[in-house]
Amino acid sequence: MAAYDVIVLGGGPAGYVCAIRCAQLGLTAAVIEREALGGTCVIWGCIPAKALLESAHVANKVRKAAEHGITTGELAFDYAPAMKRSRAVSQQNSKGVEFLLKKNKVAWIRGTGTLKAGKRVEVKTEDGKVETHEAKKALVIATGSRVKGLPQAGLALDGKRILSSDDVLVLDKTPKSLAIVGAGAVGCEFADVFNAFGTEVTLIEVAPRLLPIEDEDVSKELQRAFKKRKIDVRVSAKLQGVKVGKTGVSLTVEENGKAETLEVEHVLVAAGRAPNIEGIGLETLGIKTTDRGFVKINEKFETSVPGYYAIGDVAGNQMLAHKGSREGHVLADMLGGEHAHPVDYGNIPSCTYCSPEVASVGLTEQACKEQKLEYVVGKFPFSANGRARTSGETDGFVKIIRGKKHGEILGAHIIGPNATEIIHELVVARANEFTVEEIDLAVHAHPTLSEAVAEAVLDSMGKLLHA
Amino acid sequence: MAAYDVIVLGGGPAGYVCAIRCAQLGLTAAVIEREALGGTCVIWGCIPAKALLESAHVANKVRKAAEHGITTGELAFDYAPAMKRSRAVSQQNSKGVEFLLKKNKVAWIRGTGTLKAGKRVEVKTEDGKVETHEAKKALVIATGSRVKGLPQAGLALDGKRILSSDDVLVLDKTPKSLAIVGAGAVGCEFADVFNAFGTEVTLIEVAPRLLPIEDEDVSKELQRAFKKRKIDVRVSAKLQGVKVGKTGVSLTVEENGKAETLEVEHVLVAAGRAPNIEGIGLETLGIKTTDRGFVKINEKFETSVPGYYAIGDVAGNQMLAHKGSREGHVLADMLGGEHAHPVDYGNIPSCTYCSPEVASVGLTEQACKEQKLEYVVGKFPFSANGRARTSGETDGFVKIIRGKKHGEILGAHIIGPNATEIIHELVVARANEFTVEEIDLAVHAHPTLSEAVAEAVLDSMGKLLHA
Repeated sequence: MAAYDVIVLGGGPAGYVCAIRCAQLGLTAAVIEREALGGTCVIWGCIPAKALLESAHVANKVRKAAEHGITTGELAFDYAPAMKRSRAVSQQNSKGVEFLLKKNKVAWIRGTGTLKAGKRVEVKTEDGKVETHEAKKALVIATGSRVKGLPQAGLALDGKRILSSDDVLVLDKTPKSLAIVGAGAVGCEFADVFNAFGTEVTLIEVAPRLLPIEDEDVSKELQRAFKKRKIDVRVSAKLQGVKVGKTGVSLTVEENGKAETLEVEHVLVAAGRAPNIEGIGLETLGIKTTDRGFVKINEKFETSVPGYYAIGDVAGNQMLAHKGSREGHVLADMLGGEHAHPVDYGNIPSCTYCSPEVASVGLTEQACKEQKLEYVVGKFPFSANGRARTSGETDGFVKIIRGKKHGEILGAHIIGPNATEIIHELVVARANEFTVEEIDLAVHAHPTLSEAVAEAVLDSMGKLLHA
Repeated sequence: MAAYDVIVLGGGPAGYVCAIRCAQLGLTAAVIEREALGGTCVIWGCIPAKALLESAHVANKVRKAAEHGITTGELAFDYAPAMKRSRAVSQQNSKGVEFLLKKNKVAWIRGTGTLKAGKRVEVKTEDGKVETHEAKKALVIATGSRVKGLPQAGLALDGKRILSSDDVLVLDKTPKSLAIVGAGAVGCEFADVFNAFGTEVTLIEVAPRLLPIEDEDVSKELQRAFKKRKIDVRVSAKLQGVKVGKTGVSLTVEENGKAETLEVEHVLVAAGRAPNIEGIGLETLGIKTTDRGFVKINEKFETSVPGYYAIGDVAGNQMLAHKGSREGHVLADMLGGEHAHPVDYGNIPSCTYCSPEVASVGLTEQACKEQKLEYVVGKFPFSANGRARTSGETDGFVKIIRGKKHGEILGAHIIGPNATEIIHELVVARANEFTVEEIDLAVHAHPTLSEAVAEAVLDSMGKLLHA
């Protein structure tokens, strides 16, 4: 039995960041992880998906190469090399995390951990041995989440016809046709990837719009862009029946009171994730979970049992890597006796990396209405932005919602090229309770996409210049 | 004779913005411009150059398409369609400015203006007529700047062998070989473009490094990237002799005490610009110029003669479109009786759009040393950034220089993918006198390039996580 100040169960972006930061503050730390390091983010999520999206982006650029004076021969798009490249990038990042643990002297205990009383963990290692480790200061639950099918709708994941996002990341060829159920970030990103590689994609969403948590204007703009690219978008669409055959799936979809049956090779279930709370000993210890199945924590990440903490996807709030990492960092600072700012869950940016990209922070216009806030909307289209015109990517806009009285930034919503980068000046501004005037003070470089942010800000003040 | 509250001489980014904002504040305004609207920026600078850089970017992506599973067949690169696309984007932007003037009821007086006493301008129109217009409130000089050759070095522009950046924007094919004299932003951008389209490029700079106004570390990294792409970089290089022939140019270049003669098809002179102060009536009116040939102004943009103002390139300081636009906006607010923040010339971002991109704001490390400031450097390489890895663009870094005592951001320097966008959170932060801690407060989305900014900030506080 080995003892550490802090033991983290789970080597994803919440867990490994927490362990590294603890070690940097002089605590001894270990991470228990049975798979490769990096968690869903590095192995089955953000990183490999973005690598595939880059391939999709290149595919779409290559199709337009003639505009730039570039003549190609006949084009062919093969998913296998893109998938292999994506796996290589994923592995490189996982190795990177391993390097960081070593550099910071964090132990990696390879195996499956079960929480025990007295801040102990029993670990079953790969070769079947069972070890027990003890945390002197804190035992941190960071077991993350996993894909879940929709068995109640006849879409139980089978790895053959009914696929998860994990499955499609390792396909060696693109299907001729694919129905994607769920048009959140994951569904929209894979719609983009498979469309770029030549698959006939049908995107099915029960809510009345794509990316239902984003601002309505953004959803509309994305739907327009997807339709232009021949993605068959079905919103307010209910699954009425599913028949899984040997070579394909029949889906009956009801839209506007009309039912239609679609025949597709595969279905990707991109709806929802489940927190990993099973089989890790929560019940034995009496660690409480919420109604929605997350580990229940307070603002100090403490669970209902002293000495046990939880962070990341398993602890609720936004299931996003950067939210988890920040929690890991803040918890480590608390454990290490450093001053720590609490996590501001109202200022976590949300990003979708399809083309055009989508990024937002703060309240949607709908939320402002529901909260009866007085607000002014400022908007600027990328079609009027010089930099967007030079790159030919003019779909989308920046939308800023400012408080009518004080000018505070209630919310910011961007759909367009590099949205996921240019959102950050607004994230920094909101984190520090800036008004729109304070964004306007900064001279934005010309010609940049970020000028669209500056113009949306001007528009929210009634001073629009360039449209 | 027509009278306006405000007359602006010159329809570039300083002038047209000033006129539009004046009109929005209820003043009558006119712009005198003999060429298309938009100035150097739209017609001969930022916009067409960025359009060509996009073509170069696509060319480089297409060359690597196989990595993404995309088979292209044989590739051919033809500059003419890229040039034509660039001209079309330029024209579209110019028409956009025309639309904005109309929308805001700003008159466009087409012709060449000469300043006269009594806030009058004499305009010679295209058809040879001469009109006089009077400004009731302000006459604004915004005549911009132009390319200048280096006749003292034997490089007088001739439009045939010795070319300006204006000339290369309308070439209909790429030369086999090109020497670029001057490795500032313009020189580096065209080195990128012509290299991507297959020209043998030699980049000659008399200073000891590329982009001499940027941080030294950035210059080194760019030189490394350019050499990798087979751009022949010569720094600390002096031109000793130039022989212009019918089909090419012989250049004798001295480097480290050794002289070498290069034979090239064309030379692009990318060194310096001259303010347009000639032939506009300054002498007659007694409007003073500075030793360096700019119109002399005070902090209210007033020249030495009451009622005459100057903004943009002709008024000195950074010769950048966004600096000029801001001056135009601020002057208009002053003329319109609005509260106006003075222009903070120490917080104007500088951007170069070659690959990798370069962007900076504030002081270089060298300037901090010269000013004997106590500082700490934080740095993060894109090779350790997940998003950069997914797109395969891992050259470069973010470098933050923070004040040792108070944590203020003395300077920020980025070389890497989308540097010109991700600089903006730092521009906003500096404009509002933020410390690095205030940038760290903002949760940066994962996986984004902007995370490299957050990590460089952490590094400057001694808390680096991901490298």
